[in-house]
Amino acid sequence: MGVNSNRVEDFSSHRINTESVMPGIEIHTVCLSPKKTTLQKLKQRLSEIFFPDDPLYRFKNQTWRKKLLLGLQFLFPIFQWAPEYRLKLLRSDIISGLTIASLAIPQGISYAKLANLPPIVGLYSSFVPPLIYAILGSSSHLGVGPVSIASLIMGSMLSETVSPRDEPIRYLKLAFTATFFAGLFQASLGLLRLGFVIDFLSKATLVGFMSGAAVIVSLQQLKGLLGISHFTSKMQFIPVMSSVFKHRDEWSWQTIVMGFSFLVFMLTTRHISMKRAKLFWVSAAAPLTSVILSTLLVFCLRSKTHNISFIGHLPKGLNPPSANMLYFSGPDLELAIKTGIVTGILALTEGISVGRTFAALKNYQVDGNKEMMAIGFMNMAGSCSSCFVTTGSFSRSAVNYNAGAQTAVSNIVMATAVLVTLLFLMPLFYYTPNVILGAIIISAVIGLIDYQAAYCLWKVDKLDFLACLCSFFGVLFISVPLGLGIAVGVSVFKILLHVTRPNSLIMGNIKGTQIYHSLSRYKEASRVPSFLILAIESPIYFANSTYLQERVLRWIREEDEWIKANDGSPLKCIILDMTAVTAIDTSGIDLLCELRKMLEKRSLKLVLTNPVGSVMEKLHQSKMLDSFGLNGIYLAVGEAVADISALWKSQPDFPEDCNETGQCRETKR
Amino acid sequence: MGVNSNRVEDFSSHRINTESVMPGIEIHTVCLSPKKTTLQKLKQRLSEIFFPDDPLYRFKNQTWRKKLLLGLQFLFPIFQWAPEYRLKLLRSDIISGLTIASLAIPQGISYAKLANLPPIVGLYSSFVPPLIYAILGSSSHLGVGPVSIASLIMGSMLSETVSPRDEPIRYLKLAFTATFFAGLFQASLGLLRLGFVIDFLSKATLVGFMSGAAVIVSLQQLKGLLGISHFTSKMQFIPVMSSVFKHRDEWSWQTIVMGFSFLVFMLTTRHISMKRAKLFWVSAAAPLTSVILSTLLVFCLRSKTHNISFIGHLPKGLNPPSANMLYFSGPDLELAIKTGIVTGILALTEGISVGRTFAALKNYQVDGNKEMMAIGFMNMAGSCSSCFVTTGSFSRSAVNYNAGAQTAVSNIVMATAVLVTLLFLMPLFYYTPNVILGAIIISAVIGLIDYQAAYCLWKVDKLDFLACLCSFFGVLFISVPLGLGIAVGVSVFKILLHVTRPNSLIMGNIKGTQIYHSLSRYKEASRVPSFLILAIESPIYFANSTYLQERVLRWIREEDEWIKANDGSPLKCIILDMTAVTAIDTSGIDLLCELRKMLEKRSLKLVLTNPVGSVMEKLHQSKMLDSFGLNGIYLAVGEAVADISALWKSQPDFPEDCNETGQCRETKR
Repeated sequence: MGVNSNRVEDFSSHRINTESVMPGIEIHTVCLSPKKTTLQKLKQRLSEIFFPDDPLYRFKNQTWRKKLLLGLQFLFPIFQWAPEYRLKLLRSDIISGLTIASLAIPQGISYAKLANLPPIVGLYSSFVPPLIYAILGSSSHLGVGPVSIASLIMGSMLSETVSPRDEPIRYLKLAFTATFFAGLFQASLGLLRLGFVIDFLSKATLVGFMSGAAVIVSLQQLKGLLGISHFTSKMQFIPVMSSVFKHRDEWSWQTIVMGFSFLVFMLTTRHISMKRAKLFWVSAAAPLTSVILSTLLVFCLRSKTHNISFIGHLPKGLNPPSANMLYFSGPDLELAIKTGIVTGILALTEGISVGRTFAALKNYQVDGNKEMMAIGFMNMAGSCSSCFVTTGSFSRSAVNYNAGAQTAVSNIVMATAVLVTLLFLMPLFYYTPNVILGAIIISAVIGLIDYQAAYCLWKVDKLDFLACLCSFFGVLFISVPLGLGIAVGVSVFKILLHVTRPNSLIMGNIKGTQIYHSLSRYKEASRVPSFLILAIESPIYFANSTYLQERVLRWIREEDEWIKANDGSPLKCIILDMTAVTAIDTSGIDLLCELRKMLEKRSLKLVLTNPVGSVMEKLHQSKMLDSFGLNGIYLAVGEAVADISALWKSQPDFPEDCNETGQCRETKR
Repeated sequence: MGVNSNRVEDFSSHRINTESVMPGIEIHTVCLSPKKTTLQKLKQRLSEIFFPDDPLYRFKNQTWRKKLLLGLQFLFPIFQWAPEYRLKLLRSDIISGLTIASLAIPQGISYAKLANLPPIVGLYSSFVPPLIYAILGSSSHLGVGPVSIASLIMGSMLSETVSPRDEPIRYLKLAFTATFFAGLFQASLGLLRLGFVIDFLSKATLVGFMSGAAVIVSLQQLKGLLGISHFTSKMQFIPVMSSVFKHRDEWSWQTIVMGFSFLVFMLTTRHISMKRAKLFWVSAAAPLTSVILSTLLVFCLRSKTHNISFIGHLPKGLNPPSANMLYFSGPDLELAIKTGIVTGILALTEGISVGRTFAALKNYQVDGNKEMMAIGFMNMAGSCSSCFVTTGSFSRSAVNYNAGAQTAVSNIVMATAVLVTLLFLMPLFYYTPNVILGAIIISAVIGLIDYQAAYCLWKVDKLDFLACLCSFFGVLFISVPLGLGIAVGVSVFKILLHVTRPNSLIMGNIKGTQIYHSLSRYKEASRVPSFLILAIESPIYFANSTYLQERVLRWIREEDEWIKANDGSPLKCIILDMTAVTAIDTSGIDLLCELRKMLEKRSLKLVLTNPVGSVMEKLHQSKMLDSFGLNGIYLAVGEAVADISALWKSQPDFPEDCNETGQCRETKR
């Protein structure tokens, strides 16, 4: 190679050369990034991976005292807003707190049933966790408590192994232990700043998953709504449907009439609230109203309605401690950990996305990793005080937001209302019919079936729609964790497919400009004679280097055929526009090397334009820069075309005689 | 939105608008790709995935008869080169064929021992498969036969379950069945055009894997070289090393002296051949020479060397049929399939890469998918004629190439030589000592330890080096398939990491040009006042949309701080350069939408430049184009800066009063 080490030094220095064979054309040298040691690069890379939001920027240039205060506020966001809390905010917080309490109490009881747990556990779970979130959480609008999806999954995963009816204590222990591990997992994700793990549950996956779960949950509620007492504990479509129709003799018309009337009532209020946002309280109050009305009804008609089952005795009093029920060994441990991780990640997904949604509406930011820690600690504390998995619930947060909540005080108000209920009002739920709980669950989850979002996915991105379908049918027909796994697999496969089969295209010049663009997209773009300008739209990796080699050779073959058919001037130079090649690995470098050699044998020159910083660096480290030489790499396609054309004009016999361009110019000077 | 549907129509038509607020600035509209139906898009996408090389292009515009001939040539490449075969090529083919036969016979016997199979199976495997490859294969230089890696893996995977010494027949059946499934798997990959599966074994992974396998194979040969008879059948470092030192009383000095002298002899010849390519025959002839010399030695000293074990009786005659030994049911089936897939994929990787390497040297192309079918059918046929897994071997192909092989006839010549050996020369191997086979194996695999490649990986790409280390230590300490799995996992993780944490950078203008480039890389690039120009270097997917949102907001925050510190003019417009955003999904579109709303609330305008075809299409389908309006998307950063600056000059109060730019200009006109 005629390019000596001096020249390579030129690359590393940060100057824009303006050198050219012909006067009038200004050519810029491509620079390397500033030099960094491996350690510096590693540090930068790790900080991008774990601290993309630079969470400690507030601490910079502060006094020690200020830093201490900021640190306290960082760990306990309550110290951030509490000192600025004004009494006039209290009114809004009390109103919204009481509103969500009216929703939280019936939902708590219902979701506990969904998880096959005693109803009282649902109320316990609406008391301790909101208080802890108020101290640790950074969202002002999140309404904390049990949620349908996490309850459903906990219920379905645990009851596949342990029957809640036959072994209630073992089941309860399992549930608390799973809650503990869910919290531990969530807090660790936040602490280790691995929050991006939940990003792999894409929106498409979640739309399908939620819809599937909503369908299966609704179908399962037919047990209560139809008054069936023998029902499968499985969570798949087929066993559930066969349970419904196998026990037709157990259907009770009183239960059916009552259940469906209240269901219609709640769906109507839901519809009203959706039409007019101001009437949000109509649907927010509906569950409690239904509970009260149905309880009264059952109480009054109790002598005539033997068929309608009701909740029965609920113990009065605060959350009993349950730390002694957690276990960290034994054969059930694996199940508890597995359930904890799956419910934990789904609870997290809902909590974080709800928090972000309402933060965006009020234009503040929620730190995902901090929220994870808050939710995680809340669940760990919950597992020691008879609570099961809780997180930020979408329905409750929406009501909270609409009712005008200003700070986390609304969660404290809600917890107080639940406290009063626990201490004094429990006997009132004695006659609450189970059928109403089913109706509440259905009316809550029906909103999760988001067919509009699915249609939108179909229209915009077919592969996203496929992921959505996979998770929908996976949840419905196979099982919840497997359905979710398949959908994540499809999403990851989509990323890999994009890398494995990247797009490449021929570019042409838009007349009168230095802009080069896709020939097929811009009819005004025209081929540059003797040049083939290819853009590669993907990093060049081991996974696509073989493909890209074949594809580039095919482009060249097709171009040759086109030239033959159109009597064009023969091809002399291939320009690879590397603007969109955002990374390269050793296989990619081998590809470029190989390609250059193959083209050289056909007397074709290979030129790269505009490699990004990291690619340039790897080219330099692998000594490829030396072999390409100074005029093998240009800053822009326009400059490459101008410079090489000028070179050809000055040396008409150049491309045949001399392939090592750098060498030629070196010699001729 | 003030942009009516008419305007969107403008996007879809293929024209370059030159409209601008101020005269003198020429602004180009960004075009959509030509419209296509979903079916057309699917067809194009599938053809890119499965037929990137357009394998049927030769068939276009041909007569029926010609098509038939081409089809025959396509299926059986022998019809392509046989009609043009000249006698003068025969001389080179005979020489190279005999040369590789001299290598193939000792290697065949040795590799069969490596797979714990009777030595004769190695010779059978050097007879049938080369003949079949000569008909089906498209490489002229591939030397076909058993290879060390595949033999090692088959031996280690099978002997973990079945002992070759205690149940030789069951073991043999398993080996043939595994070979059949390896062939079936290989042929299916080729037939279904899924050849890209082997691309996921990146070079980095293979370097580590090969080195690890070579180390473990060499250590295992200490059994033969030291004369130990009680040796572990496990393939991990620790049991092998403990076997070596536990049985020190079995070490036999005669064996050690003989083994190491021949090993030194072969390594010396290897060194000579590496120094001078012309002397390739020195190392090619060394194994056979060693076998002959050592056999003579043992024969002559047979009365005095009871400690040296030798091969013993080998049956004369051709490959016996073994189709009756294959089974497709029973408890061993799973093991056979698993072993078949792992050995099949590794054999394929070696065969394809060797084929490509030598094709590139002679400037012809090898069709990966066709080669897979050839190798697959060869193994399926082999499994019915007492052969185990074979593929294109690197060492044999290199010798073949250096000896001047012209066509696949050299493989036929080799097979003939093996045939003669099988028929007449088998008794000569009676006294061949086992120790020499170990020496042959070591000298063959030692070249696989490619520390230079590993050093190169370390220098160029640290994550590639990590993948290499993982597969090296995984193979050495855990197990062959698991080590391979871990390494593939690391490689895929690397792709996902790049997508999850993409690079983004601030761009500045290079004075006197329309070129915008990284501020940190090009010291000559300078900030454009009131603009923040960000380039995102990755597709925007569900996996990175949260990260990108945080990162962009952080860039804006840091820019604001910089402006405050430097008394710059306040930020008014954020330009996202989308050139390197090669794809977007629904989450990505949500991100853009969200970002636009958030910035609007801060009176900042968001502008996109140069979205690629597929991104533009998705923006259109999701109605985002309407909300961005005509001057929310520009073709180039330079045009965006010029047009927006001009707009500000003409409407000084613009950015505060009116965020919906499209609407404003619509009204004012």
